[in-house]
Amino acid sequence: MQRILYTYFRSSAAWRVRIALAFKGLEYTAVPVHLLRNGGEQHAEAYRELNPQEMIPALLEEGELISQSLAICEYLDECYPTPPLLPTTPVQRALVRSLALSIACDIHPINNLRVMQYLKGPLGHDQQAADVWSRHWMAVGFAALEARLAKLGSEQCCVGTTVTLADLCLVPQVANARRLNLDLAPYPHIVGIDAYLSALPAFAASHPSQQPDAE
Amino acid sequence: MQRILYTYFRSSAAWRVRIALAFKGLEYTAVPVHLLRNGGEQHAEAYRELNPQEMIPALLEEGELISQSLAICEYLDECYPTPPLLPTTPVQRALVRSLALSIACDIHPINNLRVMQYLKGPLGHDQQAADVWSRHWMAVGFAALEARLAKLGSEQCCVGTTVTLADLCLVPQVANARRLNLDLAPYPHIVGIDAYLSALPAFAASHPSQQPDAE
Repeated sequence: MQRILYTYFRSSAAWRVRIALAFKGLEYTAVPVHLLRNGGEQHAEAYRELNPQEMIPALLEEGELISQSLAICEYLDECYPTPPLLPTTPVQRALVRSLALSIACDIHPINNLRVMQYLKGPLGHDQQAADVWSRHWMAVGFAALEARLAKLGSEQCCVGTTVTLADLCLVPQVANARRLNLDLAPYPHIVGIDAYLSALPAFAASHPSQQPDAE
Repeated sequence: MQRILYTYFRSSAAWRVRIALAFKGLEYTAVPVHLLRNGGEQHAEAYRELNPQEMIPALLEEGELISQSLAICEYLDECYPTPPLLPTTPVQRALVRSLALSIACDIHPINNLRVMQYLKGPLGHDQQAADVWSRHWMAVGFAALEARLAKLGSEQCCVGTTVTLADLCLVPQVANARRLNLDLAPYPHIVGIDAYLSALPAFAASHPSQQPDAE
């Protein structure tokens, strides 16, 4: 069966899906979509035909295109349930999804490439102001996440000792924060969990530096 | 069983959950959290203890607090599966989730209250510039959504003729767009689906104007 992932090495949303695929041992062909070259290859007509949102990642499997990283991960978890990315009880599943969404909705989209481009273009801010903006939203999001993880007593993974959807979101977001020089000292649980997860094969193999399109 | 929804009449994220609860016929006690009064009641210590993200909605059920609107909706769908909010096949479920996330991740969080406050506070923009910002991201998101709905041939609901999680996100976002005077003429499928859905009892009863804290 043909499975294609439209990806960009540095995209944290694409990285989430790469972790899911590696975690479940699923082979795929990576098709890089360069988010900066030629004004952004995600805006090219051929790709827009596939995914009108003009964003990555997108997964093509058995002729069906699936977009949105969390929708792709849930799809993979339903089709290939072992090892699972979600706990078994509704309350625990909700907890995992809530942690994942607190990153995927309330941190990442406010700092992604297109928002940075709009801040620097139409709104006329410089790179420094854009970086301050990014660090602000990451700090707000991480403070809440740290409080939740501390209350849960999380040390290895976000929820207990088993990898879940929340972990797939955490590690790429921490990498983004480090790239932006966010001070991570106030977030010991996040830092500890990131260190534990980053050593796992699925997380290491899917790291941006290990991708065919890495620069 | 005690079920409490922390809500704010005008919050589109809270409205999604109110639709889910009404759609499934689930009774609840609405506890209003005023997002503007006293610097924002979501930042008060008592609420922050419950939800460190200091955002609404949050659902308290059987002593468990669940935050993040989509996590709450998935939780309700797992606990109270009839009528369902997701289709039965993984591909269709992924489609619904992808449409929902395209609103919940890529439109709403970039235009919500706290981002507006940051644009007008630290970045020094006026209300007009903040409104232009909001309309921009809504227009970008709606253009992609319209293309997808047109391709699907959607007329009543986002996917076919059955209410799903995607519809719970669409109607509140369209209401936000109307409040910001976004020209909806380029999005006939979105407008048509919104009109169909808005007449359904679960959507009408959960409308901001019907809430106990409506102003």
